Amino acid sequence: MSYAADVLNSAHLELHGGGDAELRRPFDPTAHDLDASFRLTRFADLKGRGCKVPQEVLTKLVSALQQDYSAQDQETQFMNVAIPRIGIGLDCSVIPLRHGGLCLVQTTDFFYPIVDDPYMMGKIACANVLSDLYAMGVTDCDNMLMLLAVSTKMTEKERDVVIPLIMRGFKDSALDAGTTVTGGQSVVNPWCTIGGVASTICQPNEYIVPDNAVVGDVLVLTKPLGTQVAVNAHQWIDQPERWNRIKLVVSEEDVRKAYHRAMNSMSRLNRTAARLMHKYNAHGATDITGFGLLGHAQTLANHQKKDVSFVIHNLPVIAKMAAVAKACGNMFQLLQGHSAETSGGLLICLPREQAAAYCKDIEKQEGYQAWIIGIVEKGNKTARIIDKPRVIEVPAKD
Amino acid sequence: MSYAADVLNSAHLELHGGGDAELRRPFDPTAHDLDASFRLTRFADLKGRGCKVPQEVLTKLVSALQQDYSAQDQETQFMNVAIPRIGIGLDCSVIPLRHGGLCLVQTTDFFYPIVDDPYMMGKIACANVLSDLYAMGVTDCDNMLMLLAVSTKMTEKERDVVIPLIMRGFKDSALDAGTTVTGGQSVVNPWCTIGGVASTICQPNEYIVPDNAVVGDVLVLTKPLGTQVAVNAHQWIDQPERWNRIKLVVSEEDVRKAYHRAMNSMSRLNRTAARLMHKYNAHGATDITGFGLLGHAQTLANHQKKDVSFVIHNLPVIAKMAAVAKACGNMFQLLQGHSAETSGGLLICLPREQAAAYCKDIEKQEGYQAWIIGIVEKGNKTARIIDKPRVIEVPAKD
Repeated sequence: MSYAADVLNSAHLELHGGGDAELRRPFDPTAHDLDASFRLTRFADLKGRGCKVPQEVLTKLVSALQQDYSAQDQETQFMNVAIPRIGIGLDCSVIPLRHGGLCLVQTTDFFYPIVDDPYMMGKIACANVLSDLYAMGVTDCDNMLMLLAVSTKMTEKERDVVIPLIMRGFKDSALDAGTTVTGGQSVVNPWCTIGGVASTICQPNEYIVPDNAVVGDVLVLTKPLGTQVAVNAHQWIDQPERWNRIKLVVSEEDVRKAYHRAMNSMSRLNRTAARLMHKYNAHGATDITGFGLLGHAQTLANHQKKDVSFVIHNLPVIAKMAAVAKACGNMFQLLQGHSAETSGGLLICLPREQAAAYCKDIEKQEGYQAWIIGIVEKGNKTARIIDKPRVIEVPAKD
Repeated sequence: MSYAADVLNSAHLELHGGGDAELRRPFDPTAHDLDASFRLTRFADLKGRGCKVPQEVLTKLVSALQQDYSAQDQETQFMNVAIPRIGIGLDCSVIPLRHGGLCLVQTTDFFYPIVDDPYMMGKIACANVLSDLYAMGVTDCDNMLMLLAVSTKMTEKERDVVIPLIMRGFKDSALDAGTTVTGGQSVVNPWCTIGGVASTICQPNEYIVPDNAVVGDVLVLTKPLGTQVAVNAHQWIDQPERWNRIKLVVSEEDVRKAYHRAMNSMSRLNRTAARLMHKYNAHGATDITGFGLLGHAQTLANHQKKDVSFVIHNLPVIAKMAAVAKACGNMFQLLQGHSAETSGGLLICLPREQAAAYCKDIEKQEGYQAWIIGIVEKGNKTARIIDKPRVIEVPAKD
């Protein structure tokens, strides 16, 4: 027990000087008595949301779950008001309850290490799970469970250092979000895995069903794209043959800055973004994760009640990462909207006259920009990015 | 889509002739166009609950989560009544909600394939998750999420056959339990993993806090032990060097029967057992899983308010599996109470005068025996098995 406490104290020390991730020193394995070459991201062959089962395969497989629920099961009557049963395909499950018109809004997510700092990895994992609630406009999480797989390839020493740091990061993020981690499951597995389950019980007016986009709405994005490009480029600093592919377009300093911007962005909660969705009458939102900006935009467009389409004009990208992505050919498909993001921003449909005020308000409250990236047109429930979208370079915050 | 539907139809066909798992034909890979040597259990090096992080390691690691919650956080006031906040270490998290005295009772579990029949594996995984709710006396699950990892080692063909069958088994078990699967997460991973998250929102009188055992109570167990021994012995039929270790004490027919009894037992819901806990005024319960009978009995004893100890006299074991365990030396530690179980029975503290009626009632309703296995004595919140406990051989049901 005392050993674990020591580890946690050193985690505290590293954070000394300010809670802002921007001020955080890079994770130093030797400070924890680990080999200098220790890299958390090596404990899985796939990274972050890149591990997800491909969207089209998933659709085929989950059809097994969607059968046998008749149309009558799709909604439940409560006080003569139909409460829609929302499930597979959206960010959260929304389940009408037996009690007083309440609903259970719930989501789960887990994935593989994407950054080498265990504490930050824990924070990112928690922010990523919560993000699904925030995408539905839910601002309070009533309970968090943690899902953790310890890699079979970790030494006992590595495990005893790294796992408490991941747990503490996860827990601290939950506390930031005003919730607590009350349980979960821990297993051993070849790859390290971290994730959770977020649940809220709320009134129907506390969440926003993401199906009300109308022609004339605009699309707002609350975090920059390019997290996957940044974490990959950062790993390539140690791999000369890969680094050579990008060294003409980017410096090591650029990549380190982008990596820190990405880590900071991924660990940031979308909670303020969710709160402001109510204030500015958002018509629906989703969060950008493994299927990339366009994949999630398409899913959101497909769920709309009205015959609308989403057209994206602007791509806010972490500084220099668009150039890195281009230098890598088709690998990331960042500018095509397919690059996976981890704990990405909310993509929100807002009434045209409210969007600028939304962006201004979030920047005032959080100090981070949000961007108007597209518009809602009449159409057939699809989404696209225009030819030659404008790339907005998003610098590291000082 | 149509392909997945075909697969599901063949799953239906296999069940033709009765929904009872006992009547179910063994899973035949060739009927699904898979190689005859296909074995689901080969897609992980660890099996079932044997994959769990050891109890003492886990205790050390989760201390990171338990810090920083002051005594004041441990309970929440609602209408001037303190609702205890129950968390890590018990079967479920119980979280007081902002709404009308309600609580969220929640649990999660996932593990690796333990049987080769994908449909039955899905059923077992679902029954196992629900069992944590049932252990708290909760009889209705409001929502189920499914957690699935598809093995990177599966061919596309294997994946397209096996995953829909697992999903269908999981879903059917959820329907049996009166709940539905509304979402979840699917990833790819070296090992195949299956599990879920079960959630209920209920009044405080709908769950039973497992801390009220008193001297004189008796301990009832609702399923036989030996599931891990049975699934291992069944795999050894194909492995001559391992089979030789046990062939003097058991026949192939015995092992096949035991395997079917285990599969049937693991897929059976503890729901009736939970309902009857209310009827017969149970003082608390837990479900027997990865840490074995004694591991879970010790945890339960440790959570009691009164100074009591649990003494176990009888061990109901799937027929012949005690002999197999003995022939394997210290490998399983079945009679010492340490053999891992998957989706095991409830271990329930009942008032002495109610226990026999409880056992009779469950047998009447379900056709399965429950057993009085021990007593609650004055003591220091520990549990033990007596020297030379009586082994009750539990035959396969005909």
